[in-house]
Amino acid sequence: MNNKKQKNSGKNKLHEIIYEADTTQGKLFDVILLVAILTSIILVMLESVQSIDTKYHNTLYFGEWIITILFSIEYLLRIIAIRKPRKYIFSFFGMVDFLSTIPFYLSLFFAGSQGLIALRALRLLRVFRILKLARYIGASNKLILALKASKAKIAVFLFFVLIVCIILGTVMYMIEGQENGFTNIPKSIYWAIVTLTTVGFGDIAPQTPLGQLISSIIMILGYSIIAIPTGIVSSEISKTSETLDTNTQSCPNCLKEKHAKNAIYCYHCGSTLNA
Amino acid sequence: MNNKKQKNSGKNKLHEIIYEADTTQGKLFDVILLVAILTSIILVMLESVQSIDTKYHNTLYFGEWIITILFSIEYLLRIIAIRKPRKYIFSFFGMVDFLSTIPFYLSLFFAGSQGLIALRALRLLRVFRILKLARYIGASNKLILALKASKAKIAVFLFFVLIVCIILGTVMYMIEGQENGFTNIPKSIYWAIVTLTTVGFGDIAPQTPLGQLISSIIMILGYSIIAIPTGIVSSEISKTSETLDTNTQSCPNCLKEKHAKNAIYCYHCGSTLNA
Amino acid sequence: MNNKKQKNSGKNKLHEIIYEADTTQGKLFDVILLVAILTSIILVMLESVQSIDTKYHNTLYFGEWIITILFSIEYLLRIIAIRKPRKYIFSFFGMVDFLSTIPFYLSLFFAGSQGLIALRALRLLRVFRILKLARYIGASNKLILALKASKAKIAVFLFFVLIVCIILGTVMYMIEGQENGFTNIPKSIYWAIVTLTTVGFGDIAPQTPLGQLISSIIMILGYSIIAIPTGIVSSEISKTSETLDTNTQSCPNCLKEKHAKNAIYCYHCGSTLNA
Amino acid sequence: MNNKKQKNSGKNKLHEIIYEADTTQGKLFDVILLVAILTSIILVMLESVQSIDTKYHNTLYFGEWIITILFSIEYLLRIIAIRKPRKYIFSFFGMVDFLSTIPFYLSLFFAGSQGLIALRALRLLRVFRILKLARYIGASNKLILALKASKAKIAVFLFFVLIVCIILGTVMYMIEGQENGFTNIPKSIYWAIVTLTTVGFGDIAPQTPLGQLISSIIMILGYSIIAIPTGIVSSEISKTSETLDTNTQSCPNCLKEKHAKNAIYCYHCGSTLNA
Repeated sequence: MNNKKQKNSGKNKLHEIIYEADTTQGKLFDVILLVAILTSIILVMLESVQSIDTKYHNTLYFGEWIITILFSIEYLLRIIAIRKPRKYIFSFFGMVDFLSTIPFYLSLFFAGSQGLIALRALRLLRVFRILKLARYIGASNKLILALKASKAKIAVFLFFVLIVCIILGTVMYMIEGQENGFTNIPKSIYWAIVTLTTVGFGDIAPQTPLGQLISSIIMILGYSIIAIPTGIVSSEISKTSETLDTNTQSCPNCLKEKHAKNAIYCYHCGSTLNA
Repeated sequence: MNNKKQKNSGKNKLHEIIYEADTTQGKLFDVILLVAILTSIILVMLESVQSIDTKYHNTLYFGEWIITILFSIEYLLRIIAIRKPRKYIFSFFGMVDFLSTIPFYLSLFFAGSQGLIALRALRLLRVFRILKLARYIGASNKLILALKASKAKIAVFLFFVLIVCIILGTVMYMIEGQENGFTNIPKSIYWAIVTLTTVGFGDIAPQTPLGQLISSIIMILGYSIIAIPTGIVSSEISKTSETLDTNTQSCPNCLKEKHAKNAIYCYHCGSTLNA
Repeated sequence: MNNKKQKNSGKNKLHEIIYEADTTQGKLFDVILLVAILTSIILVMLESVQSIDTKYHNTLYFGEWIITILFSIEYLLRIIAIRKPRKYIFSFFGMVDFLSTIPFYLSLFFAGSQGLIALRALRLLRVFRILKLARYIGASNKLILALKASKAKIAVFLFFVLIVCIILGTVMYMIEGQENGFTNIPKSIYWAIVTLTTVGFGDIAPQTPLGQLISSIIMILGYSIIAIPTGIVSSEISKTSETLDTNTQSCPNCLKEKHAKNAIYCYHCGSTLNA
Repeated sequence: MNNKKQKNSGKNKLHEIIYEADTTQGKLFDVILLVAILTSIILVMLESVQSIDTKYHNTLYFGEWIITILFSIEYLLRIIAIRKPRKYIFSFFGMVDFLSTIPFYLSLFFAGSQGLIALRALRLLRVFRILKLARYIGASNKLILALKASKAKIAVFLFFVLIVCIILGTVMYMIEGQENGFTNIPKSIYWAIVTLTTVGFGDIAPQTPLGQLISSIIMILGYSIIAIPTGIVSSEISKTSETLDTNTQSCPNCLKEKHAKNAIYCYHCGSTLNA
């Protein structure tokens, strides 16, 4: 076993540095990558601000080149370091890594005068690279467990919200009509969502008394039903906490787990638990 | 008994397909109906967008015809398949089914030049058909139980919110007056609801310092009291969860309660529980 | 004792009808009063809508007369029916009853041309009469208990929110300045409250990049800390529910209450509890 | 030991008055300080309102002088009264005390015509002095404990919110573009935060159908995920409450736990608990 490990030691070392964060080098790699990702996002942001872009266009362009080369090297190293490259390439982060690096290269070969703008937009996809950060969160499993457990209930809730918005949006379209900004049903539904979620942009606002009455109902509804997802998640988090309040013993006889923390006998087979 | 079943087997078969979803045919029927409902809603939406309506008016009109005929057939089948048709016809969904199908037929006979617009509006009621979707939710009884249990408390809360809005709306009408958009008391109450629910359209906004002070109080009030419905629902959901997670058995030996729902032996004294 | 009761039977009867809701007559009185209050509020609302007021001024004025006389009679009856009239007169609802009836009478004697407008405003105070409705809520003691218990914590929270708004409002005044609508510090604080409570009217909105950055922080802060009052109330409601989960036994020996519902022995004196 | 105390009695007395609030004098000092802080904040506010500043400039200036002198004396007394002055000077409140007093003095010596405005802004930092109020809150340790416990989880949540806003802000910049107010990516991210937190100023609002669709998703997302911090804090507060309400004793006879904190006898077997 020790022999086998030493054979692929170069590849293993690389795998350790790139994919893990336990060694000093692995941590250093992650920090450098983090800085590179943040830099790339800031570059894209600055480029989008016209006053800054006109002044420092060359510097920003140079910066993008360096970042793109760094990301390309990282992408290749990731493929080399892993035993099954396909698994990485077609994984979510593999796709994101590829899609956030390629647009810059494409802009070199297909540099038509109009095409550039569309490619620029594509280049913005590089922002998704930030999702890599999710790798560095790790902890907080409890929260994720609670959210997974409440996924179905929240889906039902969102579905209900959507139906309410479609119905009320249509009603508002009939009441307010095109002259008050409710130009068509999809727009009215958009307005109903804006109102129910208590965002309230105010770009469209009801003008007729009846419309304002129904708006009031939508708003109070939205203000009240926000209690539902909150209640779901709260109770789910409490439950996961409780589950952790059961002790970690497993019955020495039948191996059942999740005994209440004050249990003396196994609830399943009746044999005495170890204290 | 077996004989009786075979007698009405045709009707029973139809009932199974239309009203139930256990057989393959029943599921297929439901999926087709779901698609038809969604299509009808999308058609109504597209028709309301003027640019699309002028281009594809005939296609949309044709689509509506097909959907309407499908819904008419479904309505008749539902009446035939059920033993007590009156129960269906006067049920909530029976009414919705009827009201969402009839306007299109009416538009054929009463095709006055102005009347059509009003009928168009009626036709939009067909959107209510989407409520049928509620049938496909099923699960999530726990959530519904919790909401039913907290209904009374939330009603008291909403009643309180309404009174606060009426009082504060009137006060704002006196302070801000007609020149700042608070034209009359109902409108001021509408504004108070917009503000308390933290929607904040901004179509009406306080201009005087005193008005802004009272607005601040309304906003902080609204921001704080949202805790009330949330708290009610949270605790109610927690309660229903707990009730459903421990069984109601008490140990025949030591009378201990709150055994895990899959417990066979008492966790405290080790004696066998009654199944 | 039976004699004494019969002496004041007339007054007692009146007290029963007006202050209580157990007899048929008492309930009838309450329903009539409720209708009268709602009518008076609707009248005030309609009067404030100019287009309605000009049309139906006389009808509305006549309606107000009737309501005012009814309220006056009720006020006098309340004083007669109670044993200690002062206690009623200086109670919260006594004051509200008086203040919501008197402005209409005053408008008769001091009918100056300009003074009328001010009196009209005073007349609006009659809306406070709706607070009487609070009497008909009754139930929901659990909710009120939970809110009372969390009063102190929520006060601390609101105090914190206010300080944050004062500091951030002042900072925004320095950053955005008068040219972007942040005219003075009180107005900036008002804006900070509008933003932190997620109302967001949009009548004042940050224009500078730095101002928008700080706004973002305020918004995310407001979005996050709403969890605090919600958490407080949720846990308080859960606790009150739990308190009700303790049984209602009191120890036959030491009279201690609030035993856990599975308690066999008194937790205080050790004597056996009644099952 | 008694001797030692009497030696530094003057300094100790001063320390007691300034830093503690147990004696009558200590309380008086705190109340005076509180009034001074509130006065200083109100003065700064009034000064920022132009109409008031032009009228009462001299009065306000005189008031600021008195407050500044009071704060200077307080600052010196604090340094004298404490055994280790450095600890106070470099503490958070020491810095705030210094920074909120010094700008007024600086404005005397460096009274350039343009420089004054910048110094005025610095003077506003005095508002931070209000943070001193935090000293008077004290209680509510339970709340603070719960918040500390949920700090990490809420940080993860806020991090997630930020990433979502960066991604969606960039997407909206691509869809809506500069002609609809989404001038650059930072501004689009600002808009995404405004929308996700359900603030919704409405100064920037999506105009294209696709933009409105994505906005709807952002709004519903923001409306749903607010459940997460709320759930975290709720469960954390519940947990702290429970921990504080039952003691950690286990019955020496039957080993039962979770006795009420004032329990003397085991609620299950009746044997005496260890104090």
